[in-house]
Amino acid sequence: MSKTKKLKLGLVGGGPGSFIGAIHLNGALMDGMFELAAGAFSSNPEKSRIRGEELMLPSERVYDSYDEMFEKELQLPESERIDVVCIVTPNNVHLDPTLKALKAGFHVALDKPLTLNYTEAKELYHAVQKSDKLFLLTHTYSGYPMIKQAKQMIANGEIGKVRKVYVEYPQGWLWKLLETENNKQAAWRTDPTKNGLAGCMGDIGTHAFHMAEYITGEKVSQICADLYIKVEGRPIDDDGVVLMRFENGASGVLMASQTDTGAENNLKVRVYGEKGGLEWEQELNNSLTVRWPEGPDQIYRAGTGYLGSLANENTRTPAGHPEGYVEAFANLYRNFARCIYAERNGEKPKEEWLDFPGVEDGIRGMAFIDHVLKSNKSEQKWTPFIVEK
Amino acid sequence: MSKTKKLKLGLVGGGPGSFIGAIHLNGALMDGMFELAAGAFSSNPEKSRIRGEELMLPSERVYDSYDEMFEKELQLPESERIDVVCIVTPNNVHLDPTLKALKAGFHVALDKPLTLNYTEAKELYHAVQKSDKLFLLTHTYSGYPMIKQAKQMIANGEIGKVRKVYVEYPQGWLWKLLETENNKQAAWRTDPTKNGLAGCMGDIGTHAFHMAEYITGEKVSQICADLYIKVEGRPIDDDGVVLMRFENGASGVLMASQTDTGAENNLKVRVYGEKGGLEWEQELNNSLTVRWPEGPDQIYRAGTGYLGSLANENTRTPAGHPEGYVEAFANLYRNFARCIYAERNGEKPKEEWLDFPGVEDGIRGMAFIDHVLKSNKSEQKWTPFIVEK
Amino acid sequence: MSKTKKLKLGLVGGGPGSFIGAIHLNGALMDGMFELAAGAFSSNPEKSRIRGEELMLPSERVYDSYDEMFEKELQLPESERIDVVCIVTPNNVHLDPTLKALKAGFHVALDKPLTLNYTEAKELYHAVQKSDKLFLLTHTYSGYPMIKQAKQMIANGEIGKVRKVYVEYPQGWLWKLLETENNKQAAWRTDPTKNGLAGCMGDIGTHAFHMAEYITGEKVSQICADLYIKVEGRPIDDDGVVLMRFENGASGVLMASQTDTGAENNLKVRVYGEKGGLEWEQELNNSLTVRWPEGPDQIYRAGTGYLGSLANENTRTPAGHPEGYVEAFANLYRNFARCIYAERNGEKPKEEWLDFPGVEDGIRGMAFIDHVLKSNKSEQKWTPFIVEK
Amino acid sequence: MSKTKKLKLGLVGGGPGSFIGAIHLNGALMDGMFELAAGAFSSNPEKSRIRGEELMLPSERVYDSYDEMFEKELQLPESERIDVVCIVTPNNVHLDPTLKALKAGFHVALDKPLTLNYTEAKELYHAVQKSDKLFLLTHTYSGYPMIKQAKQMIANGEIGKVRKVYVEYPQGWLWKLLETENNKQAAWRTDPTKNGLAGCMGDIGTHAFHMAEYITGEKVSQICADLYIKVEGRPIDDDGVVLMRFENGASGVLMASQTDTGAENNLKVRVYGEKGGLEWEQELNNSLTVRWPEGPDQIYRAGTGYLGSLANENTRTPAGHPEGYVEAFANLYRNFARCIYAERNGEKPKEEWLDFPGVEDGIRGMAFIDHVLKSNKSEQKWTPFIVEK
Repeated sequence: MSKTKKLKLGLVGGGPGSFIGAIHLNGALMDGMFELAAGAFSSNPEKSRIRGEELMLPSERVYDSYDEMFEKELQLPESERIDVVCIVTPNNVHLDPTLKALKAGFHVALDKPLTLNYTEAKELYHAVQKSDKLFLLTHTYSGYPMIKQAKQMIANGEIGKVRKVYVEYPQGWLWKLLETENNKQAAWRTDPTKNGLAGCMGDIGTHAFHMAEYITGEKVSQICADLYIKVEGRPIDDDGVVLMRFENGASGVLMASQTDTGAENNLKVRVYGEKGGLEWEQELNNSLTVRWPEGPDQIYRAGTGYLGSLANENTRTPAGHPEGYVEAFANLYRNFARCIYAERNGEKPKEEWLDFPGVEDGIRGMAFIDHVLKSNKSEQKWTPFIVEK
Repeated sequence: MSKTKKLKLGLVGGGPGSFIGAIHLNGALMDGMFELAAGAFSSNPEKSRIRGEELMLPSERVYDSYDEMFEKELQLPESERIDVVCIVTPNNVHLDPTLKALKAGFHVALDKPLTLNYTEAKELYHAVQKSDKLFLLTHTYSGYPMIKQAKQMIANGEIGKVRKVYVEYPQGWLWKLLETENNKQAAWRTDPTKNGLAGCMGDIGTHAFHMAEYITGEKVSQICADLYIKVEGRPIDDDGVVLMRFENGASGVLMASQTDTGAENNLKVRVYGEKGGLEWEQELNNSLTVRWPEGPDQIYRAGTGYLGSLANENTRTPAGHPEGYVEAFANLYRNFARCIYAERNGEKPKEEWLDFPGVEDGIRGMAFIDHVLKSNKSEQKWTPFIVEK
Repeated sequence: MSKTKKLKLGLVGGGPGSFIGAIHLNGALMDGMFELAAGAFSSNPEKSRIRGEELMLPSERVYDSYDEMFEKELQLPESERIDVVCIVTPNNVHLDPTLKALKAGFHVALDKPLTLNYTEAKELYHAVQKSDKLFLLTHTYSGYPMIKQAKQMIANGEIGKVRKVYVEYPQGWLWKLLETENNKQAAWRTDPTKNGLAGCMGDIGTHAFHMAEYITGEKVSQICADLYIKVEGRPIDDDGVVLMRFENGASGVLMASQTDTGAENNLKVRVYGEKGGLEWEQELNNSLTVRWPEGPDQIYRAGTGYLGSLANENTRTPAGHPEGYVEAFANLYRNFARCIYAERNGEKPKEEWLDFPGVEDGIRGMAFIDHVLKSNKSEQKWTPFIVEK
Repeated sequence: MSKTKKLKLGLVGGGPGSFIGAIHLNGALMDGMFELAAGAFSSNPEKSRIRGEELMLPSERVYDSYDEMFEKELQLPESERIDVVCIVTPNNVHLDPTLKALKAGFHVALDKPLTLNYTEAKELYHAVQKSDKLFLLTHTYSGYPMIKQAKQMIANGEIGKVRKVYVEYPQGWLWKLLETENNKQAAWRTDPTKNGLAGCMGDIGTHAFHMAEYITGEKVSQICADLYIKVEGRPIDDDGVVLMRFENGASGVLMASQTDTGAENNLKVRVYGEKGGLEWEQELNNSLTVRWPEGPDQIYRAGTGYLGSLANENTRTPAGHPEGYVEAFANLYRNFARCIYAERNGEKPKEEWLDFPGVEDGIRGMAFIDHVLKSNKSEQKWTPFIVEK
């Protein structure tokens, strides 16, 4: 198969009205490296059909189930069949389609968190490790160019040894018992059987945790968690704080909430080192504030000529032409595609392309959920953070 | 032709290293309504071929010239051939391919400004008027959801009769004689034979002018222009101000520069009416500030539930998940596509879909350029603004 | 003594090069209600004399010690002698001059924190309680008009029952071992014998704690503290986090650091209730962001006509004419003076004037320090917060 | 008279409810260099008495008129009498008290603009020139530390030769016919007999003009003015734009309005040179944005250690402790006082202290008003700007 063909995508999930499925598609399609070729959009075949039509897929490539999709696609000639499976279902439907897709020989892009629980995570981890297929876990926020720039600056020692990490992820959309008001998003995300046992911490706390480790390159070694159910009647946490200690001696605070009434989605990260500090917030994602103790702050901007290679490989517009959330997704998908092409062509991918989240990030995220739940129940302040695989 | 097929796009221009061609593609592809099917990417056949390969087009759909593309595509079965031509060449190559594309029966999406000069504009205007094909002129900034919201709020009388419009477009990239440093973008944009006689005012002043009329729904009736060449050796303006008077009695100031050293691309518009004011800036495009004389300012945010239908039809992410410049392009293309589909299916398009810039906007933009050049030379303060067609 | 005379101020501390002494004076003098009448500016008589000259005091009112000041001032006729003692010395010199000033019959304005330690705090607490003199503790940040507005809105139930409080106070000035570089401020603030046993938490954590309780009107009932010494060689904490639980069931996070390299002084507080949220940051102190889950955010601005009585009584310029840190100080002093005048004139002060921090705030702040140190050493997650008096 | 006595201030104007009179006092008193000693606060003796009492002046120093004040004060011993007259009356009461105060031997601080009209301005100009008294004209905004920093950076050539100046001053408070609603401020400022013939341009356009010349060090040589009366029934302009050309070849745009409904007071200035750009806005006055074409933007902050001498001499708090409008006033008064002291002590004042606006700025401001009115009536685009004295 030559480089001159787009990667064919088969979607699992993302039925009518799905938020994240549509965004995955926007991101995957934007750069012209993927084309949507097939889908099993819903466990309800009628809904799958409707969504397939909306997406202008030929009806024979719209399936009633992912099992059917994998089976039928394998029967197509290699040049026709899908190359990549993109899975955007609730967390309880992550493990099974991923295992089967890998087994069927497809690359997999999976929405976070990795699985429903830590036990599943270990199974999926090993399956990916044993497979020769590529695996993308869409920790979207790591796709932003200024996050890439921050990561590279920290790795280069520009702010010195990291001392402190603040990461906060305030949302307010679950400020009331929305799950009882026919809101599908709210319903599954607050249902422990579909979402897992950590609510807010599973949904967005894992993003914040990934950000903390990704941007600093440091690993968490101990945590102290304090979770809350702020809206009466909700079965799982919708708010919480996690104190963190890192292996290098740095400390951190992770705050996540879905009941900070009125807050939107302003993931914010701040890292302070021995020589300087970095600050970034998602709602102003094209800027990175760099603070110095004895000189003026600097505002690094996406799309400028003075950025490093990691940011440069993850942008498409010049400075002042804002990129956003969809482009962050697109960056993950573009790097994933570049690596698939490189593999096909027997080329070595650029180091910058390999910088997309995968199963190592995924299992750490599931360990985070597991340890947070444990620490929250403990009367001891500190719980060691140990990732078993 | 059924709705269930993507629209096939044929690109004119956008060769290797082109900025705007790539962005048009990102925008057109993102929502899965278009697919790139053919291209004549450069007047240099070798460059066209290279770009075609990058874009993974089959070689038989990569052409040496747009003439060849139109001819050969027409020979393909209707279900195979392109539906829409997207033209992203320098301004001196706008008129000819547009006329030919329309004549060949293709819909046309054209980068602004409409043509090289006002005479050409009139010709193109009439060609579009006579054609039954749809025509999109990519005044990108009118695609932003919060601009749509502002337009709708003003139309609804929420800020009262418009009194004042400030629109500013400060760039700094031409702060030095970049056109002598092997910068292709700078080279054609400062060459009057390729760009036309207005430099900064043609390139970005037309965007600002379009914004002023689009957002307010008011028409300019008189102008007073003052242009400058700030960088010695440049043949055409790189900076200027235009005072405006509107038919309804409002006044305005339009500022555009490409030599505001260090400025990026922060198009900003402010409209004040008898009851309130609106402020928007492109680098913070997901917010619209609404000012009231006797109550707190409000920050309207993209993706929220309280916006009007125009904004709602032009967004894809929930609040706090920033959309940007590429999505603004995508909004133009999506509305354009929705109208093409509606036509095909004999349906009436939604009013909100019809709200994309076209040839009326285009000829007004060319009249703006023409009158600005005239007013700049005049010792009289005011020059009437009359659009001849 | 009639209202028509300014209040005479006697300063304790604030010698040459003092930061906070000069600011207290700016704040007290600005509104013309106080005049500086005497001072014991330093324990070094020569330095006291130099500072007295700078401040244009007659030499006979510049004293070698506060003991001398109190003694000599009492010998002056009542109409000449000082009315108010303002104490701006290091924490180890808070208790003694305050006790003596009260005993001598002077009102006292004291810089925070109340005392060197909790034991002293209880003694001072009872002395103030028994005295008939007024007592001001300068928790500056509670003097900002938009903080007053926030407090009033919360008290009025505008955002519903409080669920969550974030308060952060990031500074970076102690990013290195500044105390060894002949920096007087750094020297005493990192010296446990002068500052007390809590470094960062004593200096700015107490401000943050006061803010959390002041703005919400809720009381802390449990804490979990985690303190750090980020700069090697420093004897006391320069960084830390305190998780908080409030009596009403709300939770909170308090972050304070003096080693967030590059950070200035951006005290920030966010409160989320069942109906809405409030956000304020000191470096943009003239705005208060009010967030709603189903409508646009609002930006309340200082000096506007729509604010409540608490804000109105604590401002002096119209909207858009920024007030700042010095005015926040001035607001404390003005309210203090208004209450002194009211007492003299046998009038009932307005409720808004009485809203300045005093000894109740002071003892809670010292209890905070005490409990934070205890919790930091504990392996238990939660430490009950009980204020003994 | 020694340095060890505060300067005694006699106020002309600033009666009950006055805005600007109170602010002048806040600014003058804050640093302890002035004390209010006398006042003729209103042409209505009863109002003058009331205000005198509010300000706790002894009744014998509260006068029925400024004539009385000058006469009676001269009869006091030199050590008792006022040193400085501060005039904060409407513009039609600027010339007479200033001439008389100078003649009586008092230094004068006068609110802007200089006089009611250009003819008066010339008379006052020569009176000040001939006098040996010091004269301060309170162009407040030039007192901000970051404006001082910008001025010094431009003077040092840091952004290269100045090419472009934008200065805008949007207010909205006169959005309706407030002058008919018993608003005293609005009444005199829209009354040509008290305010002069230029409304908005006289009140705030002169501030903007002063800023443009002050910050750049360049002089305007030609203007093109376009004024409006946006609110029907108002006799003088409430909105306008002035294009400017400077002697050095730079161009500029000055926008001022009092009918930008909802706008507060955000004076903003942007200067672009051949090497970089500077941006400042009053509502965020503690920051100065410095833009570079090939490196990250920088945010210079007030109170930091890396600023130049001009900023340093005009600040009082460390970084992150915001100063504001009152401190800008205080900076003018402090420099004025420092120069008066220097003169008394036969010392040479620091160059930085001499940097306060005076009669040269004043007459240029009045010439600005005069030329703007002329240009506004002219059909010619450009009107030469020539300052006659």
